[in-house]
Amino acid sequence: MGDVDYFGYRGTVKEKLISINAKIGDRLRVRRGDRVFEGLLMPREALYGDKPYLVIKLDNGYNIGVYVTKDTVIEKVAEKKSLLLSRPSTRSQNKSLPSIVMLSTGGTIVSKVDYETGAVKPALSTDELLEWVPEISEIAYLEVYEVLRIFSEDMTPGLWARIAEEVYKYMTRGYDGVVVAHGTDTMGYTAAALAFAIKNKPVPVVLVGAQRSSDRPSTDSAFNLKSAFLVAAKAPFAESVIVMHGETGDSYALVHRGTKVRKMHTSRRDAFQSINDLPIAKVFPNEKRIEIIGRILFKRDRDLEPVLENHFDEKVILIKTFPGIASDIIDYVIDKGYHGIVLEGTGLGHTPNKLIPSIERAVDSGIPVVMTSQCLFGRINMHVYSTGRKLLAAGVIPGKDMLPETAYIKLSWVLGKTRDLREVRKLMLTNIAGEINPRITVNLYPRWLQ
Amino acid sequence: MGDVDYFGYRGTVKEKLISINAKIGDRLRVRRGDRVFEGLLMPREALYGDKPYLVIKLDNGYNIGVYVTKDTVIEKVAEKKSLLLSRPSTRSQNKSLPSIVMLSTGGTIVSKVDYETGAVKPALSTDELLEWVPEISEIAYLEVYEVLRIFSEDMTPGLWARIAEEVYKYMTRGYDGVVVAHGTDTMGYTAAALAFAIKNKPVPVVLVGAQRSSDRPSTDSAFNLKSAFLVAAKAPFAESVIVMHGETGDSYALVHRGTKVRKMHTSRRDAFQSINDLPIAKVFPNEKRIEIIGRILFKRDRDLEPVLENHFDEKVILIKTFPGIASDIIDYVIDKGYHGIVLEGTGLGHTPNKLIPSIERAVDSGIPVVMTSQCLFGRINMHVYSTGRKLLAAGVIPGKDMLPETAYIKLSWVLGKTRDLREVRKLMLTNIAGEINPRITVNLYPRWLQ
Repeated sequence: MGDVDYFGYRGTVKEKLISINAKIGDRLRVRRGDRVFEGLLMPREALYGDKPYLVIKLDNGYNIGVYVTKDTVIEKVAEKKSLLLSRPSTRSQNKSLPSIVMLSTGGTIVSKVDYETGAVKPALSTDELLEWVPEISEIAYLEVYEVLRIFSEDMTPGLWARIAEEVYKYMTRGYDGVVVAHGTDTMGYTAAALAFAIKNKPVPVVLVGAQRSSDRPSTDSAFNLKSAFLVAAKAPFAESVIVMHGETGDSYALVHRGTKVRKMHTSRRDAFQSINDLPIAKVFPNEKRIEIIGRILFKRDRDLEPVLENHFDEKVILIKTFPGIASDIIDYVIDKGYHGIVLEGTGLGHTPNKLIPSIERAVDSGIPVVMTSQCLFGRINMHVYSTGRKLLAAGVIPGKDMLPETAYIKLSWVLGKTRDLREVRKLMLTNIAGEINPRITVNLYPRWLQ
Repeated sequence: MGDVDYFGYRGTVKEKLISINAKIGDRLRVRRGDRVFEGLLMPREALYGDKPYLVIKLDNGYNIGVYVTKDTVIEKVAEKKSLLLSRPSTRSQNKSLPSIVMLSTGGTIVSKVDYETGAVKPALSTDELLEWVPEISEIAYLEVYEVLRIFSEDMTPGLWARIAEEVYKYMTRGYDGVVVAHGTDTMGYTAAALAFAIKNKPVPVVLVGAQRSSDRPSTDSAFNLKSAFLVAAKAPFAESVIVMHGETGDSYALVHRGTKVRKMHTSRRDAFQSINDLPIAKVFPNEKRIEIIGRILFKRDRDLEPVLENHFDEKVILIKTFPGIASDIIDYVIDKGYHGIVLEGTGLGHTPNKLIPSIERAVDSGIPVVMTSQCLFGRINMHVYSTGRKLLAAGVIPGKDMLPETAYIKLSWVLGKTRDLREVRKLMLTNIAGEINPRITVNLYPRWLQ
């Protein structure tokens, strides 16, 4: 495990960060000669190549890379903050109810329209949320913390690590469930990341978002929040799931397994859908009822000790193939020092044959290459056609029925543990968090003509 | 238009190729000093950077790049071949029926299992096809030509140009329809390419494939072929369409508009589905009946003069964004001299904000950047959130409800006509071949829970 990086950092920078136990989001002061930089520690960005740069977010919001030499001094000024936003809230709460923590990361569900520009901007207003959804106080005893305040399109693997650490913290403190408010753009990715990053979850972690801003009449925030809190408080399973509208009306929400869910529509309330798996449950929030319709893989069990494994390798790339793709892009990724490649190929798991020499070079350079399909539905099978067989011979790891996005997250997570190719292959082929469905039934393909 | 390349070639190589009227697939002899190379002209590959290489396919199947100097002599040895495979066929045909040309490009529909290796390999057997589907002789007078013999994963924009030229040729010769047999991996891409490459189609061009090899009992070849020939011979529309199984049984096939169709399953017979548009029609081949269920945008009209516009710029890249994406990949694409970028962003059309400076640099360098969504369903709207507004300010062209794959093909085609950014923007925003649906209705989203 000696070659594993630390939030993307290696060598001297890694050693210095470990020596002060620096975590992403901690406030650091960096002195190099007579220059001093201060800001929040960010995960390493591929942008800086292999050079010993430390990335910090300055107070003006910009990220900079500080070149680190042996003589550079890095101090921790403050631990990263997570802001308590609502305990005690203005309304009285019933402490005999299940205790739920809501972690806010940003997104439409905690957003308002900026009336100056007309655009929606993240701006948390806990009291407003509680006012909109008074039913929550009948379901749970609630605490709300702000972990991040970002658009979800700006989410990174380093920030998944941070969210996972917060979720883990509250799980170990005995809460009955964790709700994560998240922007919908990349909520599916984060749900999968949390599925891998915490093993032995005693209680569920429920991601929830909104497709329409909370101060619009058509908002889906309240319905989704009620449903999410119900699942966090009462569901018999303890997985990383997404809870969102099941159809356009307010009849039910669906609980999607984090590793099998995808945002399939730019604007509909029922944009999130399970692919190659049934949703785990339907939720009828007004009746406070959860109906199990799919498979429960991990049961709620307060005696379980959660295990945090939240290191994601940032140097993993997802490449979708297309007819004009040239092998230069694979060569670039190898030469640039990426650690892993997930291909979103065509059909049963193919790329143009002309890419195969470069793919083979990647594998020979110790870079695992995982195959998924841009069809999204169905399973990879690389034994049917000669192209698939050649790709297997080149060392490509078949991604089974994993979503391309889930395979990408899983590979980042696996590479956070090991870069040994045999070990990576074994883990990628092992079903860890429901990302592989051994039995895809006919009813999992939606009905297209209505 | 002086800066437009010729199948990817520029400068001296372009001039020499134009002087001998060389087309993709023509057999060339290249003399440089005392070295002689002979093979089929292939489109330029990005692999060779900006250097004056000519790409030819040798008889051993390998592509090589021949460095071209002023003194290099390029001769045309033979025009590209299209092999007549079945006229007159062994069965007598009825010449009073509509005349249909089938162009074979390869793929499972014209494949057999290689019993030595167990894998499926392309190998056309026209007589077998006709034996399997005797009903075709009741529908049409048939001629079959082999244009290519490739796996569809090896399809390229240069080969789209070649297929388009063949389709155009038979359209101008007064045939009543053209069927293109194609591998399913990239059939959706080729269908969209043919939608753009031939304007004013007098008759339909129908792409058809098979998900199961023709010599397997479960093959869908016969049903699909019957349906495709029926559409080519009798449909009232003249668009580039895909005809494939509409559900798993043999009840009906669906006719999908080429610009709105996507392979959505790795193995099911009904893998092809229309996105953000209804299929144009249902086909009941056994009843020889076509039922229009969607919109007809271009009517069959034998008096129309087709126009061939089959130049696709090969230096266009499709980039799917994901949380760990770094801006270096955009920088690479700019520095490598790509001509256009299609982004498959998240949600309503977003990328991480950290990519925006590189995206702006691309646009400032004259490289159009088009935004689509990895949600696939729904429409881009970059006015709702500040990230979208910043991307618009950086010059990104919103892809409306275009599929990422269709936007990629359209941009390749537009860049084959012009590299003027204003002109590119105008064409990308104009509905040319049904790629933009101004009115997405609720029933276009499939029903997920069955």
